[in-house]
Amino acid sequence: MSGVSKKIVLTPIGVVKRRSSEGGVKDKSAVCEITVKSGLTSALEGIEEYSHLYVLFWMHKLAEEDRGRRKVHPRGRLDMPLLGVFATRTQYRPNPIGLTVVELLKVDGNVLTVRGLDAYDNTPVLDLKPFDFWDEAKNVKVPDWWRRMEDKRKSLG
Amino acid sequence: MSGVSKKIVLTPIGVVKRRSSEGGVKDKSAVCEITVKSGLTSALEGIEEYSHLYVLFWMHKLAEEDRGRRKVHPRGRLDMPLLGVFATRTQYRPNPIGLTVVELLKVDGNVLTVRGLDAYDNTPVLDLKPFDFWDEAKNVKVPDWWRRMEDKRKSLG
Repeated sequence: MSGVSKKIVLTPIGVVKRRSSEGGVKDKSAVCEITVKSGLTSALEGIEEYSHLYVLFWMHKLAEEDRGRRKVHPRGRLDMPLLGVFATRTQYRPNPIGLTVVELLKVDGNVLTVRGLDAYDNTPVLDLKPFDFWDEAKNVKVPDWWRRMEDKRKSLG
Repeated sequence: MSGVSKKIVLTPIGVVKRRSSEGGVKDKSAVCEITVKSGLTSALEGIEEYSHLYVLFWMHKLAEEDRGRRKVHPRGRLDMPLLGVFATRTQYRPNPIGLTVVELLKVDGNVLTVRGLDAYDNTPVLDLKPFDFWDEAKNVKVPDWWRRMEDKRKSLG
């Protein structure tokens, strides 16, 4: 597999800033900030016209050895099947890149205020991409276990 | 900005295989394959139950100096505004990670057949994530230029 063993080097473009008063990382209604490196402020021009963004971030708290995991129970729940990591959104993945759609609330210089980012304080941000209608998918199907898990979560509030 | 200058190292999890007969990379109906490293085959278990996936890939053809661009005209079109790279889906970005929603057609061992992946032959793949309803966004807004560009594209067929 040519090229597949080559290492790829990234440099963060910014960092997540989250005050403890801003709610837990799994609280989809919580608001936090992304501070982009000052040298990249001009690369944000026009981003304020979108309502939503994809944030790609580096899950920096994951231990190196956890990148070697192949299977997990989704969200650690033993009542869910044991699945390959690529069949889940677990942080335990060979390249622990987080991907979340956030609502963009404000842009002030190099600081973006967003809602719904499930990343810890000081998480390195790798990329920001506008969320547009290219990413719509039709007739989406998910596994039965996913619906069971989601139904249970909703019933618990 | 603590941690932001730290380099992050990734290793591809697989590679895109695209025959020239399979249509151009911008043809959303074109089918191609993703060959995952054989050591990661077990990490795919259960992925076949999803209809769609996010593919994160490394845009390996981009020259190093193009990672320094800050502004572009979307799709190189001079009739569109000059915008910060983070306000577009251009490949010219500090960390050229591609992100595309694809339709998953088949899984055979470590080979996934997918539709709609806009990546060249031999593109390194960084991650595969299931597309589920977590990523739905409500009341999505995009800039006026985006709609103009899209209307024009559709009218040209």
